[in-house]
Amino acid sequence: MNIDAAKAALAHLDIDEKEASIRASSRDFFWYSPVLKDRLDHVVADFVVRPRNEAEVIEVLKVCYHHDVPVTTRGAGTGNYGQAMPLEGGCVMHLRWMDKVKAVHPGRVIVEPGCLLKDLDAACKEQSGQEIRMFSSTWATATIGGFIAGGSGGVGSCTWGSLRDLGNIIRLRVVTMEEEPRILEFRGEELARVSHAYGTNGIITEIEMPLAPAYDWVEMFVTSKDFMAATRFAQDLANEDGILIKLATVFEAPVAKDYFQRVAPHVEADDTLIGLMVAPHSMDGFQTLLGRSPALNLIYRSDDHDWDRSPGTVFEYGWNHTTLRALKVDPSITYLQVRFGYPNQLDLIEKMREALSPEVLHHLEVLKEGGKVMFAGLSLVKFTTEERLDEIVKIHEDAGAMVFNPHRYTLEEGGRQTVDDRQLKFKREADPKGLLNPGKMIAWDDPDFDFAEMYSYPKIQAAE
Amino acid sequence: MNIDAAKAALAHLDIDEKEASIRASSRDFFWYSPVLKDRLDHVVADFVVRPRNEAEVIEVLKVCYHHDVPVTTRGAGTGNYGQAMPLEGGCVMHLRWMDKVKAVHPGRVIVEPGCLLKDLDAACKEQSGQEIRMFSSTWATATIGGFIAGGSGGVGSCTWGSLRDLGNIIRLRVVTMEEEPRILEFRGEELARVSHAYGTNGIITEIEMPLAPAYDWVEMFVTSKDFMAATRFAQDLANEDGILIKLATVFEAPVAKDYFQRVAPHVEADDTLIGLMVAPHSMDGFQTLLGRSPALNLIYRSDDHDWDRSPGTVFEYGWNHTTLRALKVDPSITYLQVRFGYPNQLDLIEKMREALSPEVLHHLEVLKEGGKVMFAGLSLVKFTTEERLDEIVKIHEDAGAMVFNPHRYTLEEGGRQTVDDRQLKFKREADPKGLLNPGKMIAWDDPDFDFAEMYSYPKIQAAE
Ligand SMILES: Cc1cc2nc3c(=O)[nH]c(=O)nc-3n(C[C@H](O)[C@H](O)[C@H](O)COP(=O)(O)OP(=O)(O)OC[C@H]3O[C@@H](n4cnc5c(N)ncnc54)[C@H](O)[C@@H]3O)c2cc1C
Ligand SMILES: Cc1cc2nc3c(=O)[nH]c(=O)nc-3n(C[C@H](O)[C@H](O)[C@H](O)COP(=O)(O)OP(=O)(O)OC[C@H]3O[C@@H](n4cnc5c(N)ncnc54)[C@H](O)[C@@H]3O)c2cc1C
Repeated sequence: MNIDAAKAALAHLDIDEKEASIRASSRDFFWYSPVLKDRLDHVVADFVVRPRNEAEVIEVLKVCYHHDVPVTTRGAGTGNYGQAMPLEGGCVMHLRWMDKVKAVHPGRVIVEPGCLLKDLDAACKEQSGQEIRMFSSTWATATIGGFIAGGSGGVGSCTWGSLRDLGNIIRLRVVTMEEEPRILEFRGEELARVSHAYGTNGIITEIEMPLAPAYDWVEMFVTSKDFMAATRFAQDLANEDGILIKLATVFEAPVAKDYFQRVAPHVEADDTLIGLMVAPHSMDGFQTLLGRSPALNLIYRSDDHDWDRSPGTVFEYGWNHTTLRALKVDPSITYLQVRFGYPNQLDLIEKMREALSPEVLHHLEVLKEGGKVMFAGLSLVKFTTEERLDEIVKIHEDAGAMVFNPHRYTLEEGGRQTVDDRQLKFKREADPKGLLNPGKMIAWDDPDFDFAEMYSYPKIQAAE
Repeated sequence: MNIDAAKAALAHLDIDEKEASIRASSRDFFWYSPVLKDRLDHVVADFVVRPRNEAEVIEVLKVCYHHDVPVTTRGAGTGNYGQAMPLEGGCVMHLRWMDKVKAVHPGRVIVEPGCLLKDLDAACKEQSGQEIRMFSSTWATATIGGFIAGGSGGVGSCTWGSLRDLGNIIRLRVVTMEEEPRILEFRGEELARVSHAYGTNGIITEIEMPLAPAYDWVEMFVTSKDFMAATRFAQDLANEDGILIKLATVFEAPVAKDYFQRVAPHVEADDTLIGLMVAPHSMDGFQTLLGRSPALNLIYRSDDHDWDRSPGTVFEYGWNHTTLRALKVDPSITYLQVRFGYPNQLDLIEKMREALSPEVLHHLEVLKEGGKVMFAGLSLVKFTTEERLDEIVKIHEDAGAMVFNPHRYTLEEGGRQTVDDRQLKFKREADPKGLLNPGKMIAWDDPDFDFAEMYSYPKIQAAE
């Protein structure tokens, strides 16, 4: 690893030299996890480079290849698993200047990876009355490239499913890290090679995404004294084929009272809260359905309310923002990502609640998977020890609820604990020296790893 | 019933006096059914009036009320069950002049009932790049009012569900037939009073419908040698949350070869045919899915083909157009409407095929119901006798497949054989004399009817 030579060769590019900002550009939201906080807090890049276009990306990759310098790509660094953190140091390639919306067509957009989700939506809306189908709740701060390379789904997934589902990404243009970097265009089955691969096997330089119509979504809060009734309502709503929604989230009591400051004055401690986004022309249908559950209370709608202080956008209570809000009030809170899959979702949810509440409080996101309505749980966990956290994971798994562990920094441990062969195979050809975001793909480092314990990347920087 | 007095009082309106055209305006597509053909062929109105606006509708209803003249409303008369046929004679009120698109907004349109579906779509597309969510396959000839009052769903229902589902109609403005007709506005739960009520309890004078984006749908035909594989593919496609479709239809062999003249040269007798409409920006996802079934063959796509003669629009092969095409070739063909509901749809379909093919050939439409993908069967039946037809219905019902009998002219017999209390109750207040489309609501005429035999309206015109 010859850092100085690489830096010198790249000196004509936009290189960030300030130590504080190198430090900032080497971190993401890994500190959500007490486990990752313990392992990654010291990690820092040697330098940060900010390419302005694909040609400069290629230059960075080529030079770093030549000097054996690891390259970790950064969108906005809002990931939760240390995905964007340079475990071995080296170069952080920050894509903030590659933010152009290149073309908006009916049903699709072509964009550079560094564009913020909110800027992308603004451009699509202004030019065509459209918006992206789904976004991470970090819409205001995250990039589209980071969402595709590091995220999974979010606001909109209750209707459109997850990013990995066929049709939710149309095309990715990818640059490899070889002696002579290649430019590849992926569609269809090939997309799985690099989407949600943490930038370990290629850098995405252009993205084509499907669009949906942009509506003035009505954002709402509904309360219920009965957690399961609230959960069933969210599910029933999502099963109404004629009612168009973009978000349906359930927060077990007392999450709203304890952690949602602007909502707290309007709820009681035993209120389960439902957060919703409904298309304006579906509001009649929505209210008809709501009227069938007289025990539910509509306490807030964004287009018509008398709250002294607006709660802000409702989706910033959902997805991983729930954890963020809880953490701000109680730093001992962390979370789990659980799949409550169809058709047993309601049973599993109830069972976990009986077994673990209030140590674990349900936060459920309605999700479409394979044409069925189910739930993703981003459960809030009152953290005590790593052992207990592992135990809680095991209780879920034993009951049949798959857990995507957010307290791990590798692709496999955060996923289904299996190697994605398509990603591994592509890494072999696209990153022969293993310099792209090292330490994140166990299959590359240690094919025989047995997942008995948390993986620890051998070449991770030593803590001081 | 004082016809002459009513005609005289309405003489300043557009009244159709020509016998041939009165006869034509008294008929619909009832002749699809040999059973209905036998019962209804002679039915004819005394006169036809064509109001130009709501005020004239009110005038017609008021005058006919005064003179005890039955009023049967007509959109375009493309219904299949004699819905628009004046069983007792009297007045046919034809809404062809009430065809204005009043306002197009994001996500919704306000329109008069006599507007043709195709004209409505054209206006929405031109003004806003939108279109209606679903339409009857008689898009080119049927009215939006007739679709709502007499139809159930169609092209688009594979994504949005049926007309009766919450959110698929926003608002209906309705005029009653009382001494002083009232104008009512229905939303939410109230919509069920008059939608799919055949105009038996109120006349719809204005409609507010939700809209979806208008895309240049790619229309396709795919063949398979394996019927169940084709059916599973259609289902799998509809379960892909990220692939936007508007139509997925399966035709058992040899329907395509025998009845689809322009398709026949491109298929063999043992080819099951799938008809599809996919959004252009979902074509990559679609082709990826298709690629996973190498035994399926894409033989036609509307945006790129080398067929000498275009097959025309693919949706005019689906829904009830299938029956029409079959009938034209073999007049002994009729059909059934079957619900192959989730989760047993594939089993039921296979079972019925084993029991009844080729006397009954499957024609399946993918349909969303309660958030699940299932199938509506519009099975083609080689008609022999009414007894055998009833037997075939019974075989379906015994296996657990609900049949909506298209060989009956009443609401109940074409539906779930139960009285819709909301419709009956509303008829009591909106049509106290029972003059609106008489003979179509058994619950009104004969509350104790036991459905053992086909209902026969006692006051039906005598055949000459
Ligand atoms: C409060 C909060 C809420 C969140 N909510 C959600 C949510 O709803 N859904 C969700 O999926 N995630 C969520 N996340 C995680 C994260 O914010 C999102 O995944 C986000 O979209 C990542 O974008 P980013 O620009 O910050 O990516 P980064 O964190 O910068 O990068 C993410 C990963 O992608 C790689 N990468 C970035 N750009 C490229 C590129 N061009 N080519 C190749 N690799 C690249 C990085 O190396 C890294 O591994 C949330 C996080 C927080 C803190
Ligand atoms: C080839 C073919 C294909 C078809 N495909 C489909 C399909 O895919 N889906 C489907 O649902 N149907 C289908 N149908 C049935 C029919 O075409 C549709 O339901 C159509 O939308 C009816 O519209 P219309 O204007 O012809 O109505 P009409 O036949 O004129 O009327 C239908 C019923 O509604 C009543 N009515 C009409 N206007 C009003 C009003 N303003 N107020 C109150 N009552 C009123 C009439 O009295 C009658 O009872 C098909 C029929 C054929 C022949």
